[in-house]
Amino acid sequence: MTDTQKPFHIVFLLFNGITQLDFTGPAQFLARMPGAAVHTAAKHVQPVQTDSGFAMLPSTSLADCPQADLLCIPGGFGTRDVIQDEETLQFLRDQAAEAQYVTSVCTGSLALGAAGLLQGRRATSHWAYVSLLEKFGATYEAARVVKDGNVITAGGVTSGIDFALTVIAEIAGQSFAEAVQLGLEYDPHPPFDSGSPAVADPKLVTLLNDRTYGDVLKELQKVIDAS
Amino acid sequence: MTDTQKPFHIVFLLFNGITQLDFTGPAQFLARMPGAAVHTAAKHVQPVQTDSGFAMLPSTSLADCPQADLLCIPGGFGTRDVIQDEETLQFLRDQAAEAQYVTSVCTGSLALGAAGLLQGRRATSHWAYVSLLEKFGATYEAARVVKDGNVITAGGVTSGIDFALTVIAEIAGQSFAEAVQLGLEYDPHPPFDSGSPAVADPKLVTLLNDRTYGDVLKELQKVIDAS
Repeated sequence: MTDTQKPFHIVFLLFNGITQLDFTGPAQFLARMPGAAVHTAAKHVQPVQTDSGFAMLPSTSLADCPQADLLCIPGGFGTRDVIQDEETLQFLRDQAAEAQYVTSVCTGSLALGAAGLLQGRRATSHWAYVSLLEKFGATYEAARVVKDGNVITAGGVTSGIDFALTVIAEIAGQSFAEAVQLGLEYDPHPPFDSGSPAVADPKLVTLLNDRTYGDVLKELQKVIDAS
Repeated sequence: MTDTQKPFHIVFLLFNGITQLDFTGPAQFLARMPGAAVHTAAKHVQPVQTDSGFAMLPSTSLADCPQADLLCIPGGFGTRDVIQDEETLQFLRDQAAEAQYVTSVCTGSLALGAAGLLQGRRATSHWAYVSLLEKFGATYEAARVVKDGNVITAGGVTSGIDFALTVIAEIAGQSFAEAVQLGLEYDPHPPFDSGSPAVADPKLVTLLNDRTYGDVLKELQKVIDAS
């Protein structure tokens, strides 16, 4: 908190089909850190289509992106393409080599895995896809935020907010993190208790797997096995 | 949930200086409703600068925006300009007249108030600005989500997520809302308990008011009193 002059570069990867809250949640919190400089990097500096009916503008191409102090990879259905794109995977490796923190939210951990960055690490992902982590030499740990050395992975979507507070506390101290939490009124009161398979109606878990996640999981398995 | 063909138009107001999570949080949840069609309306279809270091692209100008079924006004430091802009206030009045739900997150409620839409209503806002609600004929209610007729206001920033789940349950049923909550893994575990003035270290409340919110509050008071 003392040296507010030195920029702290936070790089988020953007891509079509991103689950935008994987990025926008942590971005809202992390942008309040001392010296925070947020960069949004995509293959091309063209509007990126999110999964929520609106577009975002990347601030930089992968090639022109500054070195991250904190690298964060969001997830989403677009992950399927990300993990097959060698240019993006090489970008992740190059950035990770010099970054202070290598992080992901939701299925962003699969992109870290595909880049070879989860070998021998404990990690997590969206609950529907945690079985894929072992394909990348990672060990799934059942937690909303998992820290193994400088690699921090978060669970599905909204986990990114708890992840961000954890990171802010580590970098800028707990009191600073608590001030950010207060400013953003993060005093969650979900009207229902259905936020994880452990507490939700089992029928809903089955429904989501049958309708969407089961097919996506099979497709991701195929892509990973073929690579 | 039965009629998935009929579009349900959700209109968010975008503006420079928006606290982007006020919008992106609810958008992530609401976009999963049956028939959801998300529109992001700004004065001009040009990139909008958020408070988190990145830009978003509005999908429509105010003039071309379709009629909302659900109108949602996010907040942020840009609210100061929004409440002084007659074109935007008239847009809110016109939309509100035909909308099924008129809603806000954070200081977005001040924009609803400035448009005359909170007269005689119970409402809430970001904790630092709730004293301004009475200037618009509203009565502050201390809750994260306040529903008065078809007007639903949420507290600061992350309250928008609890608000969205409340709205989804009302429109599509509790089971559907629970499925969305499960899909987005909304099982919050904040590492600290500092999300509202009621639970935070009082020194942090003072710090934030002294550093930022106090001055912003005075400026907003001046703007409102002059209008």
